[in-house]
Amino acid sequence: MKTYVYSFGGGTSDGDGKMKDILGGKGAGLAEMSRAGVPVPPGFTISTEVCTIYFQNNNRVPDEINQQVLAALGKLEARIGKKLGDPANPLLVSVRSGARFSMPGMMNTILNLGLNDATTAGLAALTNNPRFAYDSYRRFIQMFGEVALDIDMEKFDHIFDSRKAKAKVELDTDLTAKDLQAIIEDYKKLVQKETKKPFPQDATTQLVMARDAVFRSWWNPKAAYYRKMEKIPDEIGTAANVQAMVFGNLGDTSATGVGFTRDPGSGEKVFYGEFLVNAQGEDVVAGIRTPLPISELENVMPASYKQLREITTSLENHYRDMQDFEFTIEEGTLYMLQTRNGKRTGPAAVRAAVEMAEEGLITKKEAVLRVAPQQLDQLLHPVFDGPSLKKLQLIANGIAASPGAAVGRAAFSADDAVELAKGGPVILVRKETTPDDIHGMDVSKGILTAVGGKSSHAAVVARGMGRPCIVGAGAMNIAAKQFTVASGGKTITVKEGEWISLDGTTANVYLGKAQTNEPDPNSSYFGKLMKWADEFRGSFGVRANADIPRDAKAARLFGAEGIGLCRTEHMFFAEDRIPHVQAMILASDEKTRKKALQKLLPMQRADFAGLFKAMDGFPVVIRTLDPPLHEFLPKREDLMVDLARLPHADAKLKKEMSEKYRIKVGELKKSLPVLLHRVEELHEFNPMLGHRGCRLGITYPEITEMQARAIFEAAVQVAKKGVKVIPEVMIPLIGGSKEFEHQKAIVDQVAKDVFAKAGTKVHYMVGTMIEIPRAAVTADEVAKQAEFFSFGTNDLTQTTMGLSRDDYTKFSKQYEDLKIFKADPFASIDQEGVGKIIEMAIQLGRSTRPDIEIGICGEHGGDPSSVEYCYRVGMNYVSCSPYRVPIARLAAAQAAISDKSESMRTA
Amino acid sequence: MKTYVYSFGGGTSDGDGKMKDILGGKGAGLAEMSRAGVPVPPGFTISTEVCTIYFQNNNRVPDEINQQVLAALGKLEARIGKKLGDPANPLLVSVRSGARFSMPGMMNTILNLGLNDATTAGLAALTNNPRFAYDSYRRFIQMFGEVALDIDMEKFDHIFDSRKAKAKVELDTDLTAKDLQAIIEDYKKLVQKETKKPFPQDATTQLVMARDAVFRSWWNPKAAYYRKMEKIPDEIGTAANVQAMVFGNLGDTSATGVGFTRDPGSGEKVFYGEFLVNAQGEDVVAGIRTPLPISELENVMPASYKQLREITTSLENHYRDMQDFEFTIEEGTLYMLQTRNGKRTGPAAVRAAVEMAEEGLITKKEAVLRVAPQQLDQLLHPVFDGPSLKKLQLIANGIAASPGAAVGRAAFSADDAVELAKGGPVILVRKETTPDDIHGMDVSKGILTAVGGKSSHAAVVARGMGRPCIVGAGAMNIAAKQFTVASGGKTITVKEGEWISLDGTTANVYLGKAQTNEPDPNSSYFGKLMKWADEFRGSFGVRANADIPRDAKAARLFGAEGIGLCRTEHMFFAEDRIPHVQAMILASDEKTRKKALQKLLPMQRADFAGLFKAMDGFPVVIRTLDPPLHEFLPKREDLMVDLARLPHADAKLKKEMSEKYRIKVGELKKSLPVLLHRVEELHEFNPMLGHRGCRLGITYPEITEMQARAIFEAAVQVAKKGVKVIPEVMIPLIGGSKEFEHQKAIVDQVAKDVFAKAGTKVHYMVGTMIEIPRAAVTADEVAKQAEFFSFGTNDLTQTTMGLSRDDYTKFSKQYEDLKIFKADPFASIDQEGVGKIIEMAIQLGRSTRPDIEIGICGEHGGDPSSVEYCYRVGMNYVSCSPYRVPIARLAAAQAAISDKSESMRTA
Repeated sequence: MKTYVYSFGGGTSDGDGKMKDILGGKGAGLAEMSRAGVPVPPGFTISTEVCTIYFQNNNRVPDEINQQVLAALGKLEARIGKKLGDPANPLLVSVRSGARFSMPGMMNTILNLGLNDATTAGLAALTNNPRFAYDSYRRFIQMFGEVALDIDMEKFDHIFDSRKAKAKVELDTDLTAKDLQAIIEDYKKLVQKETKKPFPQDATTQLVMARDAVFRSWWNPKAAYYRKMEKIPDEIGTAANVQAMVFGNLGDTSATGVGFTRDPGSGEKVFYGEFLVNAQGEDVVAGIRTPLPISELENVMPASYKQLREITTSLENHYRDMQDFEFTIEEGTLYMLQTRNGKRTGPAAVRAAVEMAEEGLITKKEAVLRVAPQQLDQLLHPVFDGPSLKKLQLIANGIAASPGAAVGRAAFSADDAVELAKGGPVILVRKETTPDDIHGMDVSKGILTAVGGKSSHAAVVARGMGRPCIVGAGAMNIAAKQFTVASGGKTITVKEGEWISLDGTTANVYLGKAQTNEPDPNSSYFGKLMKWADEFRGSFGVRANADIPRDAKAARLFGAEGIGLCRTEHMFFAEDRIPHVQAMILASDEKTRKKALQKLLPMQRADFAGLFKAMDGFPVVIRTLDPPLHEFLPKREDLMVDLARLPHADAKLKKEMSEKYRIKVGELKKSLPVLLHRVEELHEFNPMLGHRGCRLGITYPEITEMQARAIFEAAVQVAKKGVKVIPEVMIPLIGGSKEFEHQKAIVDQVAKDVFAKAGTKVHYMVGTMIEIPRAAVTADEVAKQAEFFSFGTNDLTQTTMGLSRDDYTKFSKQYEDLKIFKADPFASIDQEGVGKIIEMAIQLGRSTRPDIEIGICGEHGGDPSSVEYCYRVGMNYVSCSPYRVPIARLAAAQAAISDKSESMRTA
Repeated sequence: MKTYVYSFGGGTSDGDGKMKDILGGKGAGLAEMSRAGVPVPPGFTISTEVCTIYFQNNNRVPDEINQQVLAALGKLEARIGKKLGDPANPLLVSVRSGARFSMPGMMNTILNLGLNDATTAGLAALTNNPRFAYDSYRRFIQMFGEVALDIDMEKFDHIFDSRKAKAKVELDTDLTAKDLQAIIEDYKKLVQKETKKPFPQDATTQLVMARDAVFRSWWNPKAAYYRKMEKIPDEIGTAANVQAMVFGNLGDTSATGVGFTRDPGSGEKVFYGEFLVNAQGEDVVAGIRTPLPISELENVMPASYKQLREITTSLENHYRDMQDFEFTIEEGTLYMLQTRNGKRTGPAAVRAAVEMAEEGLITKKEAVLRVAPQQLDQLLHPVFDGPSLKKLQLIANGIAASPGAAVGRAAFSADDAVELAKGGPVILVRKETTPDDIHGMDVSKGILTAVGGKSSHAAVVARGMGRPCIVGAGAMNIAAKQFTVASGGKTITVKEGEWISLDGTTANVYLGKAQTNEPDPNSSYFGKLMKWADEFRGSFGVRANADIPRDAKAARLFGAEGIGLCRTEHMFFAEDRIPHVQAMILASDEKTRKKALQKLLPMQRADFAGLFKAMDGFPVVIRTLDPPLHEFLPKREDLMVDLARLPHADAKLKKEMSEKYRIKVGELKKSLPVLLHRVEELHEFNPMLGHRGCRLGITYPEITEMQARAIFEAAVQVAKKGVKVIPEVMIPLIGGSKEFEHQKAIVDQVAKDVFAKAGTKVHYMVGTMIEIPRAAVTADEVAKQAEFFSFGTNDLTQTTMGLSRDDYTKFSKQYEDLKIFKADPFASIDQEGVGKIIEMAIQLGRSTRPDIEIGICGEHGGDPSSVEYCYRVGMNYVSCSPYRVPIARLAAAQAAISDKSESMRTA
């Protein structure tokens, strides 16, 4: 007859690790460990085929298969030297589900099976621990009752809670053995009442019923839903794993512990862990008794220690990765309860991967694949010192916008931040930030806002600066120079100057001053890993988004191979420039506007020269002016309110207004309405879809002209000094070829003029952002003129999904709960929707210009799954904020290694 | 030798109407007319091939071709009985360009060729009109000088203006023959100075030079640009047409006139026009002498009149359309100078087309094609009485948003409009309108706004109401109860109650009260034409966008076959509902929200019942709630300003605020900040891309549930009374299948509940708007569940182009001047961009649901070229505002008639 039940234990097994279809994932793992000589508690796996037969056979397992189960049980009893249902030496088993694919927590498990009135008494005597025995029994009844007998769990809870009330105890652990015995009696009565039968005392009956219950749990609603979601076929069924339970609390020759084959915090190759003698697994983590370091085990149980070291070393060799293991020593016999690849910190992941490769355990390629790109964050940003953080009160939570730990005193305006920063570290707290706040963000250690999402202004700028940032902390109520939050039933007020700590990774805000640990991005392990990554990455480039020379230098240090996006408007917000920018906007005719632009020209030229120098030999993509002009002017509603307040304003308020608007106090009455009028003229209902991007350059060609002039004059000037300059001028927000042609003509004309005047030339390209669906679907026409494409995936996501990144937070929670989006589309590219538009643009663009350079400069450029996507669809590079460059490099290397298909890249 | 020159005239011609390639459009037309026996002034056409040869041959025409030209000239001289350059009886000719494709005004023309010192004197004697002769000569020198001799036009102008100053005259016509002779002398000196040669006195030389100049004008920069734009090949070249000039001012046996074969104002079949004896063509239109009605010609020159009637009748028969003709009688000989299909008013177009079909001149199909759909506007809306309008001052111009003429007194708020309307017609004047203004729009004859574009709220609602509307009249400065505009150097103030007149077709605003003529949409001609149109339209449907039963009834009268879009939110703005809507929005929990919704349920149900009754037997597409909730609340900036004003507010202002916000005066201080807080919470940066559409139904499923309940309860209730109810529930703004499934589940559940309770069922469909690119590119998935698609082309245009319809007006002028868009994309579907997305959605949708019903409900549904597009790409119907239904019906019929390809439509 065909084999339906597979035994394992004692260094052998009927199955092996490859038989996941039949044994399920868990069963195959146990078979594999046992076969490898790892002493796992013995047991047997009832195959997935039996589950299928069970359902086909009207929820009954045929007798011949039951015979195989009993035979396997006999083998198990022989192996472990205990007998199921034997009061003198009772075998207890667990019965667990386990399908081909992991379905964590979706199906049922029964522990301590084999306990009945008699074996419980036996166990109490054997362990000399009646309380333990009764507690195990009452847990078993409850678990079995719920899973196998379909009794409402709440009914057990009700009995349990009543007894606790009667015994007047607070904690479950305060219940005595006597209390537990009373509970057991009540439980048994409940079972009798609900099933019209006594609780089954026959252990074999228990086993059969438990197995069938595990099979039935395949159709738990949550399991069925999970399969639907994960596209797991309904017909494959689950296996049932029956395994002996072992006990580390059977006296001083028993023990239990957990450990790692390397230090999960640092990655150092040391045997790491802790244990307790005469204890159960949960005692080690519960913290009631203080566990001993695992090295002590050598003194207490030298043989077991030696065996454990050998086993875990061989497990690491077998699985070729750091192992996280649990073990129990039952009366001198070592059992491995579990082993799995250990979770580790970022630094540990890097060091372990590098050292394992150097030891020859894994290849360099595997080492590169072993580190999750996101983990590098911990090597690139300060992190909190755990203990010091635990002492602080968590007062708010928002959206993690830029990682790292920041500590400082709260400042509530950009100007206040600048003032306060003179005396020490500052955190800038704003409802939302605008480009006006740049100088305040610049001096702050971290940024905290009440509104906005991952792609809000604060988030984008903070990531660019490598500054920790939390946005959308909606619980904060920000008023003048303070904010309040409700926390723990109380209202907490944080005033200007008070210390707060931000964790940009968890998005937690703490009251007070935590300690931070600085990162060591230049550790030799990190350097080695990145070098290997770059080898595998090949020609796929990683550039940085950088607007000023300082950021460009940082980007080079992080390994950026050029600038993929320089947002020229960020240069416009500096203190010395904004008056000229405003003059340009307020100009009533072209002549006045050109005069203001002339003032900006030398400043922009100097900036570009700095960027070119920093990027000597690498391309610099410079985008012409993008944001709507009203962003450079005071806010409309501020002006409206101040105008309403002006007739009754006192001297102080007038002075405030005067400074805010750069208008003399005496002129406020006359000039404020004029300013408001212009702001009203520029006001837009949907600025995202308004007069911005190339639309500015088309209505005010003199702006594009000035910027092109600054670029080429800087290029010529720097090139003469021997710097290799590669400018790429990028036109934003085009909807089709006509807008691009219009702007390109201006850029080319200026280049010609500048080169003629300088008597020298530099090679340059003119290309475009693809950030509007229309540009993507007409990309064949666009590419006839455009020499490169750069996907602006922030805006492309907004337009393709009809979703404002700043407003999405209003309903993102419900959307994520309902799984309407697979992930936050502003964090990871929506491959099914936006991706279709991107792929169409690439295909159309290459159809008319096969060698067109294609990259991405949206925020997604630093997201590992998006980097992998960009690689896969054939882009030439990604560009991201400087602090994410290493992450992108690693993600790109992993994509290249995983890439099995012929790449679409041509340039 | 090959023929290069084609003569015409005297009832014969060498070429014919089909030879456009060789003769150009004009030449072929002249040949055709001549061949048909129409007495055109004789002449000859130098073929386009000569132009090509001219350029290939180093800008010279070979001698053998020149010989053909001279031969043709001889033939012409013989035909007309005059000789080129003969002082006794001089032949004057025109030399005109004429390419295969019409390129109006792009190339050059020379008139009066043949004049020199001697022939001018001869002409003066012959016509007994020396002033005419000298004026003709000086015009010829100027035209020839500029075109053939490349002399700067300004230099001629300078001479002319100096002479005028010297003669102290204001008008050109005040110059005497003597003055003109002096100018001629100056002109000739200028020619000598510029060309170092005298002005050519030899007429044949003049002819050759003029011909070559016409050829060269093929490469005028504007002509080259025009060809590029219109994709006309550069190599086809132009023909040159040489034609005798004839004169109607050679005495009392000469005359000149213009006319139509039918009345171009009414379409009535009467001989229509006017003439002058002894006059030139321009005298008829100049208004110096009063022309006589053309019937008078019968008395004055009976033979010519008879000939003219015969000719024009045969021309109408030949061209099978109403002709607009010009004629000259030179000394008893009739010449037809031009004939073309006559422009006509909308009513005339309809009547002429119907009558021509009934006369058998054209087929019914042709009659349907003869009327431009847009022309029907004039039959559906009041129009101004021309003379009465001329008396008024034009004070502003905006964007034509809804056609028709409106006259009324200015009101500056919706409430004021309601008040004022009790005393007579009102025009509502607003900076922009919001849904709050509906009651004011409803009582107004027309709507005028200072901001917004063709798809702004005012425009959309006004079109829906069939009310004339002008938007974006940016010159208006609107203050409390008045507006000012600068006009003619002065500032004009229009106060509440003053009369203004709006022309919604031209977008002109006039000060004062014009007369209007009411339309007659039910004239028998209109009815017949629409009946024929519907026969050809076939199964392609035309539905109406209608929100309330009154509009639905109007839609039926206009021939709508169902409702393609009912915007349920429009029902929410009514006076009796808005408080409940606000209560729903301000509710802090689901229970309170549901209570408010319960109040709205019976109101919505009654509305839907009304719609179903009006559309008995036709489908009614009802869209669930779409706009962001903040649209139902007061404006944020109003609240901010009022809050700032509150501390100093007097009793009157407080009362105003109290009414505005429905808050008691005593509670303003407490409640205003609370209201502002909620408004702040709902505030969005880009409301278009924010929390609206199905996103509302997903976060507040109880809203969808209430609306579905109202729909199905109404459907069941009305169906029981024998009405055939066909509800189609439409989910707005989905980005993919998951959102749709979520909302459909709610709708289906409610339907099931309602049907169970009622004990009856009605057939219904659940479908979706396609108005976000992501929905379009995943339409295959969406169509698995969705039973119909309706393109929301307003939003789809906004998202695909990244262009806010309300903000586009900021730069639309530049974009249109630069021809970046072929047309306003919010008026006509952008077929190259948005069209690609639409076609993708249709193709993907039909790939998973071949019989899916597909329509359009955006504003484009009433635009003829968009209707043609919708037909061509295989949609099943269009839906538009009721007043555009006839236009859409006609456009659809024309599309069906023109459709040569197999249709993609399947349902």
